[in-house]
Amino acid sequence: MHIVDLILKKRAGNALTKEEIQYLVKNYTNGTIKDYQMSSFLMTLFFQGMNDEEATNLALSMRDSGDVFDLSKINGIKVDKHSTGGVGDKVTLILAPLLAAHGAKVAKMSGRGLGHTGGTIDKLESIPGFKTELSFEDFERQVNEIGLSVIGQSGDVAPADKKLYALRDVTGTVDIIPLIASSIMSKKLASGSDAICLDVKVGSGAFMKTLDEAKKLAKLMVNIGKLAGKKVTAILTSMDEPLGHKIGNGLEVFESIETMNGKGPRDVVEVTTTIGAQLLLDAKIETDFEVAKRKLAKSLHDGKALNKFREMVIAQGGDVSYVDNPSKLITDKTVEVKSTKEGYITKIDALGIGVAASRLGAGRETKEDVIDLKVGLDLHKKIGDKVKVGDVLVTLYVSEKGVEEATELIKKSITIGSKKQDFKLILGTVK
Amino acid sequence: MHIVDLILKKRAGNALTKEEIQYLVKNYTNGTIKDYQMSSFLMTLFFQGMNDEEATNLALSMRDSGDVFDLSKINGIKVDKHSTGGVGDKVTLILAPLLAAHGAKVAKMSGRGLGHTGGTIDKLESIPGFKTELSFEDFERQVNEIGLSVIGQSGDVAPADKKLYALRDVTGTVDIIPLIASSIMSKKLASGSDAICLDVKVGSGAFMKTLDEAKKLAKLMVNIGKLAGKKVTAILTSMDEPLGHKIGNGLEVFESIETMNGKGPRDVVEVTTTIGAQLLLDAKIETDFEVAKRKLAKSLHDGKALNKFREMVIAQGGDVSYVDNPSKLITDKTVEVKSTKEGYITKIDALGIGVAASRLGAGRETKEDVIDLKVGLDLHKKIGDKVKVGDVLVTLYVSEKGVEEATELIKKSITIGSKKQDFKLILGTVK
Repeated sequence: MHIVDLILKKRAGNALTKEEIQYLVKNYTNGTIKDYQMSSFLMTLFFQGMNDEEATNLALSMRDSGDVFDLSKINGIKVDKHSTGGVGDKVTLILAPLLAAHGAKVAKMSGRGLGHTGGTIDKLESIPGFKTELSFEDFERQVNEIGLSVIGQSGDVAPADKKLYALRDVTGTVDIIPLIASSIMSKKLASGSDAICLDVKVGSGAFMKTLDEAKKLAKLMVNIGKLAGKKVTAILTSMDEPLGHKIGNGLEVFESIETMNGKGPRDVVEVTTTIGAQLLLDAKIETDFEVAKRKLAKSLHDGKALNKFREMVIAQGGDVSYVDNPSKLITDKTVEVKSTKEGYITKIDALGIGVAASRLGAGRETKEDVIDLKVGLDLHKKIGDKVKVGDVLVTLYVSEKGVEEATELIKKSITIGSKKQDFKLILGTVK
Repeated sequence: MHIVDLILKKRAGNALTKEEIQYLVKNYTNGTIKDYQMSSFLMTLFFQGMNDEEATNLALSMRDSGDVFDLSKINGIKVDKHSTGGVGDKVTLILAPLLAAHGAKVAKMSGRGLGHTGGTIDKLESIPGFKTELSFEDFERQVNEIGLSVIGQSGDVAPADKKLYALRDVTGTVDIIPLIASSIMSKKLASGSDAICLDVKVGSGAFMKTLDEAKKLAKLMVNIGKLAGKKVTAILTSMDEPLGHKIGNGLEVFESIETMNGKGPRDVVEVTTTIGAQLLLDAKIETDFEVAKRKLAKSLHDGKALNKFREMVIAQGGDVSYVDNPSKLITDKTVEVKSTKEGYITKIDALGIGVAASRLGAGRETKEDVIDLKVGLDLHKKIGDKVKVGDVLVTLYVSEKGVEEATELIKKSITIGSKKQDFKLILGTVK
């Protein structure tokens, strides 16, 4: 087998065999296949694509390039979710305790973010003392005991994907659906859960700008999951505005706690209970989607989810007073951005809002950047809301930097028009 | 400007501007753009192509990456030819003196070969003493005095093309027409002649396997030449069998001398006089193609071309006794390959015949290989010829190595059938 032959085979539009894909991944990871050969191959995929079987073989080969976790010592059906990434997405923080409260096992490994805010792990670290690094044995034990644990990804998960991802970033080959799908699925399959629900974001603030693209990606990931022997479903949700109101690390934990206190934003509750109901069905805990969803919504009001969250914070060494008094998670220095127009919010550029939060210090621009966990912003108005001149559109939670830049970005990101706009949040399900 | 943006622009099918192409070539040559980025870009060209203007800008940018020769001190119109490469192609050896004998100026820089036989320069070196390295001043003076000189390419011609070519070879991006065209033309434009005739080979033994592909390549190269302000034409000739009978370095000089003694193979004479007549028209020495061609054919019989060849050999220090007694150019150890079938030659795999010559020592497989200038083969039968059992198909001129392997290759490369096949040599002209 020779890499040039494989490039030419794919360039001509032919499907690669399992052995050929294994050869590619193995020899790229060990350096036999050079970056300049792999990038040429990746570009053929933009034009010729991959069928579901090829993408599955790619995902499995990348999974097998590193550590694969065996969760079989955890009793019950392990559930997991993944979001393709959006602004204000704090669903994991609420969903994990909510599912555990209903008997599913959530053994979740999350990443840190290189984006507008940190990842789930960064967010959890805004609770002082919260340990995101546990030994695998402690992780297993905690999930068996209280039903959930959320930790940082440890070990060497899918190193082939890491190497490929870095190459894609500098060679114009990021936005190729089989590569996105196999990248995500290689890591999900390595983390060992039985049922996975994917939240595929669609819209201006998401990687997939159109519903059509998002559906393709979702279908492919679901099929990869099935071919790899897992129960995988996907929901398509809009990222044409941020999810919820609060963006930032401590701010998102704050909003998650509010949600588990029965005071959550409608959209956050809707996405969380939709994914949750699907996973309760997949875990065979519930049999009717609407019933499951109603039960979950109830647990956001009756303290069941919040209690489970408190249990996790305590188990992982976090200062539980921050859960009980979440305003401690946020800086008290604020700046208001007011409307200079009257009308209805017709458009919110989620990406612009995310960048504004990042400029305040909530996100990393390079891996080395230190996140300020207490800063961010609170978006008071969302699409369809009426505003008057002088209404506060956004409250910035600030420390030192970025206030002017963030204010400018926010003004540019929010469009006020004369007609009330509809906004559709859940755009579809792929099973 | 950023390379990833240029990759994405071309990936989407948009044309790059002159400035963008200059940026690409300059920054790839200086190492700012990495191999893995350039290979990804090159692959987009397989799918999205380049228009004539882009390919011209690429050729000119590559030309300008190195030395560009100024032939303005040579009086008259300088003519040049280029072959895209075939087996047994010794046309330059005959055409250069033939054109000089008719008043055109041939200031030709040729390459060494990495192929079945050496290049023109290797072939000329089979005449002992023949100097292929002259100072530029001596080169100019010789062309002014006797009308021609053929030397090796000196200096640093189109280093961007060299770097790109090496990359293409290992990334599945060799056979992309705008890249082939701009690679050839960057070097032709650097070598400074006014009128250039391109011999684009078509068929099993050529890079372009179909007439359609070859036409595309020819048209693009002609247009690049025109846009760069040169007079460029192309002829399309068949490489479905080797050109002439003799393949090898000394063997091809031998056959060239035979041709200039009026005893040339019909196909060699036809290709040489066709290109020659075109160049005499382009140099404004003749006005009628058929008249020019007849005059050239005559000069292959009356000693005019051979005299010019002798003058060049003497001027460049070669032992002219080898011209007068060309059997000195060839080893006297021979092996015959005979036919075991009766019928007509229906197919000759030129590539297989070329590889057979190379295995005998006539070609290089790596840059470091030393060529045996006296070995090669003489193909007695060509397509359409009748053969009987026991007829000699090929005489091998051998030293030590490769006889068995060459014999096997030849047997596989020559097909004998029951029906006489036609063979068309000149397949078209592009102006």
